[in-house]
Amino acid sequence: MSDSTDLRIAVLGVGMMGADHVARITDRISGARVTVVNDYLTEKAEQVAATVPGARVVADPLDAIAADDVDAVVLATPGPTHEKQLLACLDAGKPVMCEKPLTTDAATSLEIVKREAQLGRKLIQVGFMRRFDAEYEQLKAALVAGELGQPLVMHCAHRNPGVPSYFDSAMIVKDSIVHEVDVTRFLFAEEITSVQIIRPTANTLSGSDLQDPQIAIFTTETGRHVDVEAFVTTGLAYEVRTEVVGELGSAMIGLDVGLVRKTRPGVWGGTITPDFRVRFGAAYDAEIQRWVHAVRSGAETGSYVDGPGAWDGYAAAAVCEAGVRSLETGERVAVDMVDRASVPGA
Amino acid sequence: MSDSTDLRIAVLGVGMMGADHVARITDRISGARVTVVNDYLTEKAEQVAATVPGARVVADPLDAIAADDVDAVVLATPGPTHEKQLLACLDAGKPVMCEKPLTTDAATSLEIVKREAQLGRKLIQVGFMRRFDAEYEQLKAALVAGELGQPLVMHCAHRNPGVPSYFDSAMIVKDSIVHEVDVTRFLFAEEITSVQIIRPTANTLSGSDLQDPQIAIFTTETGRHVDVEAFVTTGLAYEVRTEVVGELGSAMIGLDVGLVRKTRPGVWGGTITPDFRVRFGAAYDAEIQRWVHAVRSGAETGSYVDGPGAWDGYAAAAVCEAGVRSLETGERVAVDMVDRASVPGA
Amino acid sequence: MSDSTDLRIAVLGVGMMGADHVARITDRISGARVTVVNDYLTEKAEQVAATVPGARVVADPLDAIAADDVDAVVLATPGPTHEKQLLACLDAGKPVMCEKPLTTDAATSLEIVKREAQLGRKLIQVGFMRRFDAEYEQLKAALVAGELGQPLVMHCAHRNPGVPSYFDSAMIVKDSIVHEVDVTRFLFAEEITSVQIIRPTANTLSGSDLQDPQIAIFTTETGRHVDVEAFVTTGLAYEVRTEVVGELGSAMIGLDVGLVRKTRPGVWGGTITPDFRVRFGAAYDAEIQRWVHAVRSGAETGSYVDGPGAWDGYAAAAVCEAGVRSLETGERVAVDMVDRASVPGA
Amino acid sequence: MSDSTDLRIAVLGVGMMGADHVARITDRISGARVTVVNDYLTEKAEQVAATVPGARVVADPLDAIAADDVDAVVLATPGPTHEKQLLACLDAGKPVMCEKPLTTDAATSLEIVKREAQLGRKLIQVGFMRRFDAEYEQLKAALVAGELGQPLVMHCAHRNPGVPSYFDSAMIVKDSIVHEVDVTRFLFAEEITSVQIIRPTANTLSGSDLQDPQIAIFTTETGRHVDVEAFVTTGLAYEVRTEVVGELGSAMIGLDVGLVRKTRPGVWGGTITPDFRVRFGAAYDAEIQRWVHAVRSGAETGSYVDGPGAWDGYAAAAVCEAGVRSLETGERVAVDMVDRASVPGA
Repeated sequence: MSDSTDLRIAVLGVGMMGADHVARITDRISGARVTVVNDYLTEKAEQVAATVPGARVVADPLDAIAADDVDAVVLATPGPTHEKQLLACLDAGKPVMCEKPLTTDAATSLEIVKREAQLGRKLIQVGFMRRFDAEYEQLKAALVAGELGQPLVMHCAHRNPGVPSYFDSAMIVKDSIVHEVDVTRFLFAEEITSVQIIRPTANTLSGSDLQDPQIAIFTTETGRHVDVEAFVTTGLAYEVRTEVVGELGSAMIGLDVGLVRKTRPGVWGGTITPDFRVRFGAAYDAEIQRWVHAVRSGAETGSYVDGPGAWDGYAAAAVCEAGVRSLETGERVAVDMVDRASVPGA
Repeated sequence: MSDSTDLRIAVLGVGMMGADHVARITDRISGARVTVVNDYLTEKAEQVAATVPGARVVADPLDAIAADDVDAVVLATPGPTHEKQLLACLDAGKPVMCEKPLTTDAATSLEIVKREAQLGRKLIQVGFMRRFDAEYEQLKAALVAGELGQPLVMHCAHRNPGVPSYFDSAMIVKDSIVHEVDVTRFLFAEEITSVQIIRPTANTLSGSDLQDPQIAIFTTETGRHVDVEAFVTTGLAYEVRTEVVGELGSAMIGLDVGLVRKTRPGVWGGTITPDFRVRFGAAYDAEIQRWVHAVRSGAETGSYVDGPGAWDGYAAAAVCEAGVRSLETGERVAVDMVDRASVPGA
Repeated sequence: MSDSTDLRIAVLGVGMMGADHVARITDRISGARVTVVNDYLTEKAEQVAATVPGARVVADPLDAIAADDVDAVVLATPGPTHEKQLLACLDAGKPVMCEKPLTTDAATSLEIVKREAQLGRKLIQVGFMRRFDAEYEQLKAALVAGELGQPLVMHCAHRNPGVPSYFDSAMIVKDSIVHEVDVTRFLFAEEITSVQIIRPTANTLSGSDLQDPQIAIFTTETGRHVDVEAFVTTGLAYEVRTEVVGELGSAMIGLDVGLVRKTRPGVWGGTITPDFRVRFGAAYDAEIQRWVHAVRSGAETGSYVDGPGAWDGYAAAAVCEAGVRSLETGERVAVDMVDRASVPGA
Repeated sequence: MSDSTDLRIAVLGVGMMGADHVARITDRISGARVTVVNDYLTEKAEQVAATVPGARVVADPLDAIAADDVDAVVLATPGPTHEKQLLACLDAGKPVMCEKPLTTDAATSLEIVKREAQLGRKLIQVGFMRRFDAEYEQLKAALVAGELGQPLVMHCAHRNPGVPSYFDSAMIVKDSIVHEVDVTRFLFAEEITSVQIIRPTANTLSGSDLQDPQIAIFTTETGRHVDVEAFVTTGLAYEVRTEVVGELGSAMIGLDVGLVRKTRPGVWGGTITPDFRVRFGAAYDAEIQRWVHAVRSGAETGSYVDGPGAWDGYAAAAVCEAGVRSLETGERVAVDMVDRASVPGA
């Protein structure tokens, strides 16, 4: 994909999530660039646009959607504005990646579904990012491969260290538990037919009158049981744990140890990467990405290197030569290496 | 970084590693594109170049380095050619990211170091990718922060399921143990002064006469001890484990559980991400990268979506509405949702 | 405690549990011996009594309880007989360790409670053995010490590989979930006020019409929430997992890694024994117990040793002498040791 | 084993280890009792003997060995006295369980071996307790079963939080590393033929001039490699870790997660107990042992119970009855239970 075909994206809403998406598109992924930035706070939009060469601010979100230099839209605006903006994307025939929620209620969401269905092509993606998480992908793969047999039960825990002061008890359902709603639908590939929210003794240390924790219980079309502990004021860490129990075994993610399977009698097991390209794949990406950034800024900084240099290559060679000699004798061999100070500039 | 300033890269050598780098630059990272591909097998070069819009094949590696549309070079050619190609990069003043080894022996490596030092600017980076691995970065950070106190000892294990048939015993030193050479220098920030290779009973199942496993013992300038088990024919998996033992505690990576610290009396501990953007950062990247690819190929495939769509947003909204009602009563609430089949095209 | 004061115990019911108790009292614990064995199958009672020097069979359970050479009773008979036998123990003023259930229903259990209360001293212990498990004791200790703050929620999983053919769905409640009933009361030190049993899609591979798995939900006096997954036909293993979530943190046992605490921001941690006497305490017990058994049977077998012998002590001394010499020089030292064959009988 | 055949044991030396053995024999194991206590500090001997009904102090260790009411001897005296005392045991034909070291040097150890060999029966056991540890037993079993194939390499770590002030560098070899000497011989079933002690940068925080840590390297008869990190002043915890690497896989113990195997491609795994009697075996032992102690002291304390009582049995029955009713309907059922205060004395 050459730069001449880079996807030109308008990012609407550049609060924490939107600004992250701008940085992501600009600095970390391939094939796209942000051309238009919009926010109801103009100053914020200008601040973010200034970090992106070639990006401009457009004040009205609908103008941003309609702009000629916009091929696709990332929607990170507040939920209440989504309906209008999504309809504009559909009218313009432009693909849109919409942060959750789709809209603020089921009735308007259904209207959006219907409008897109009439178009005959899918333009809307919703930002349930867990479907792209490596551990959830492994869990889905284990299910699809039948490793767990027919799934029967799922246990979830979803804990946050804290929430903003405007968070209320209903938002724990709509903003937190909603992720487990999508995880249930993604993993079990069927709809949820009933919901129960149990209200345990509330955390008195939250400094609020939130009903927190909450226990959600879902029943699915075929009768599977899902329970979710949502606890958003733990004061500790962000923990997301999901365990599926099936007829042939169980598997859990989020235990800080990758996917853990229990599918053979008497044994629990994790996974080891079979290949260095898998184990160090992200390291290779980071190595090259950071080197590219270093080289591009090198004219200014004078440094074209972001990592080990020629000296490190030399030192490794000197040590390995000693190692190969020791391999013959089994005895200790001194490393023969010049003093770095003897090579000015090295 | 707009596409007009994309770094133009020549990739020399497109075997497994080089081809990976081409795909990485083209599909996964920002700010660079491959303009020139070179390999001593022309057919291979053409095959790889065909996957990159705008890339061309240049038959001679020195021509590729010198080309006007090349700002920087990735060197993934066989080791024996590195010396000549690195010198050409230095002469041309072009930054080069060189896969290990720098050159095939210490003497020529030292020549490279001296030539670069004379230039007065660092153009050469060596591909010791572990320095960019998240776990090694955490281990380095723990050391730098003094969490382990003065380091005294390091234990490493480096196991491969297998190696190519041309691998010999000296290559276990130069190709495998060399990574621990760099890890030692990276983590301890001092040089290795002696090496001993111990030869245990060899694996009779390797189908070769390799001396495998090998135990390498390094002593560093200040007397620290490092031992490395290199075992390249385990038949099992790729395992890289590193434990640093210091005056205040120890920390280990590669145990399939992230960084594990033992720095307080009676306690061992791992790390939990404090923030959903850390925990799901890679998922967000994948979500947007895959959506960009989907949208760009959408004209052909008719699909602009690579993930949850509008229906998934509607379903989540419907379940959450039931949840909010249950939150008031604590009782089970049926989810009110239209039948998907009633919305053709949804 | 000299043998002259050994507690003389009658074991009533020597099926699997009762026979285990006989072996336990005879071979593994101090201060007691089985003097009387009873079972409704006389042959079974005689078989078990034959393994215990000095034990005799008493055909009627009430005679066994009343016997002069019985100080205390272990009740491992079927549940329906417990009421009558417990009352006999109370009448005789003899302490009784009663396997669960106390009796088969709440009404008769309450009668037992009242009768014992009238006596003015506690004679009855019920066999909820989890209270004596090291991990549960650690979890209780963490709660009592306030490490988790006020507990709010508890999640339990209780899985068996399989159950006998006579097991029915109500027995999953009364025989399996009953353990979590006691765990809840033990850890939270308050009563359970309501119970709900949710029935997920049943396991079709159990070869039965059991409602399995079952999800039990308890609410306690102060409103704490407990959920229990009971799944007794997993085909895999015996798994018991319990996680308590409190206002200051959470702790889990049964994850095959001991007690795991999350009570500090961003960190999860396990426990390391501070002391070799803790780490190897059970090994020391086993060492001495097995040596005692070996010595006692030595007259017959000719062997008074169950472990490393004098040769092992000599070999260790020889290696350590070489080690101490190497400590001075840092060089490899050959071990000086005679050939074992040169010492006939060694 | 009735009390009439209890093994009568003299414990020589009642410092920390010897006193532990006295308590172990008296309170925790079956079939033996301490009849004679000896220590070079008479006061200490009297103090310990006072805790054991029926035990008496004998001032001279050789008299203690020879005593008529002594069937077997536990030797926990200082190492330099072992030789003389062991010879006395051999002369008396009495089995002896001797804490390490056998004697203080190889020459005298060999003399002991020869004297016992002349007797024609094995009377001496040496206190290498790791052979009785459940994890080492599992590791040995995995080796014997061939799960790891031919073993090639072993890595050990042996860390103590601290040592007494009289500890010197040679004692790290003779008192700490000696355990790994025995572990090597136990697991590999062959002798060690050479030893090398490497001396890394020493811990400056130990408050001593110890060479600590030390790295010991053993070579065995068939050429296997063993390395041991001994670090006795970590200030943190007692850690003992052992990993065996074989031709078919590796297994590690001491990682706070039980035995972890890597013996199948791409998978690491731990073990789950198949059976509740295995999982809760130690809990059952503790339950009965503590109940026996409680009953025996009950005449004095008025309590014959050390655990859940009749009320706990009643409460469990009441909850389970509610559970069985809920099983029929799936709805929440209130627990019907009398107020405990309404049953005075319950």
